Amino acid sequence: MIPQSEPPTEPMSKTRLRLWLKLLKTSGRIEAELRRRLRDEYATTLPRFDVMAALSRFPNGLKMSELSDLLRVSNGNVTGIVDRLTNNGHALRVAVPGDRRAQLARLTPAGQVAFTKLAQAHEAWLDELLQGLDADDAAILHTLLGKTERETNAQ
Amino acid sequence: MIPQSEPPTEPMSKTRLRLWLKLLKTSGRIEAELRRRLRDEYATTLPRFDVMAALSRFPNGLKMSELSDLLRVSNGNVTGIVDRLTNNGHALRVAVPGDRRAQLARLTPAGQVAFTKLAQAHEAWLDELLQGLDADDAAILHTLLGKTERETNAQ
Repeated sequence: MIPQSEPPTEPMSKTRLRLWLKLLKTSGRIEAELRRRLRDEYATTLPRFDVMAALSRFPNGLKMSELSDLLRVSNGNVTGIVDRLTNNGHALRVAVPGDRRAQLARLTPAGQVAFTKLAQAHEAWLDELLQGLDADDAAILHTLLGKTERETNAQ
Repeated sequence: MIPQSEPPTEPMSKTRLRLWLKLLKTSGRIEAELRRRLRDEYATTLPRFDVMAALSRFPNGLKMSELSDLLRVSNGNVTGIVDRLTNNGHALRVAVPGDRRAQLARLTPAGQVAFTKLAQAHEAWLDELLQGLDADDAAILHTLLGKTERETNAQ
């Protein structure tokens, strides 16, 4: 028998619950800061940034439904965002050959330039917001986050 | 001089950007799974669960504006959620003495019982979804997440 000399420890389910709340708080706090900076410094929004990022990765264009799937944003919202980007001259809609009803959205060259600037700012902000983590910390955190993957992906 | 024998390492800003994307992906994946289970197993939603959790912590009741501040959800959405909880018999609205226009929302005893059940399920789901992390992993992850706090909180 091991003597009961240690202080009572919390059940593992409580530890994991506290960890989840910490994870949510951390990502929420950083995301709020990114939203604030996109708004204040670039008069744009996180969903618009995400749409530009997706279009930037697919230079041949994406259908609204593809954008919506990629970004977990509703079709209606994606359409509204693409409308704004189009009015801005940052995106354009092109017809899909052989499908009169479908349209692809693409970044214009000006949109690509604007996105490159935004992406650089976004990377610099994260470099600052995560400066408390050095390369070793980042590697360990990455590995530990990866350990949570099996459970949900298997379903 | 140290010989350049190691493979070129990525700049720290790229490492931090990748870490942020991993963090977002992890919390998004787990949150999606929680939403799915709340819907499928309890016919409820995450915002409704969050409102019940907040009301459960404040047995004297909360104003809509207080709920909205606590949960980073708009006033209109909070009102809609409290309406549903009230129709369900899980919450009630009480007048604020001396302020004819203000109302407090509170959980009813039935609402408290329902929330206790939901909270137990929520904790058990997280215990399962984070089972890849043992107590040591959780402690390290908690500490590393804490290292990101200084930068945004100082602002």
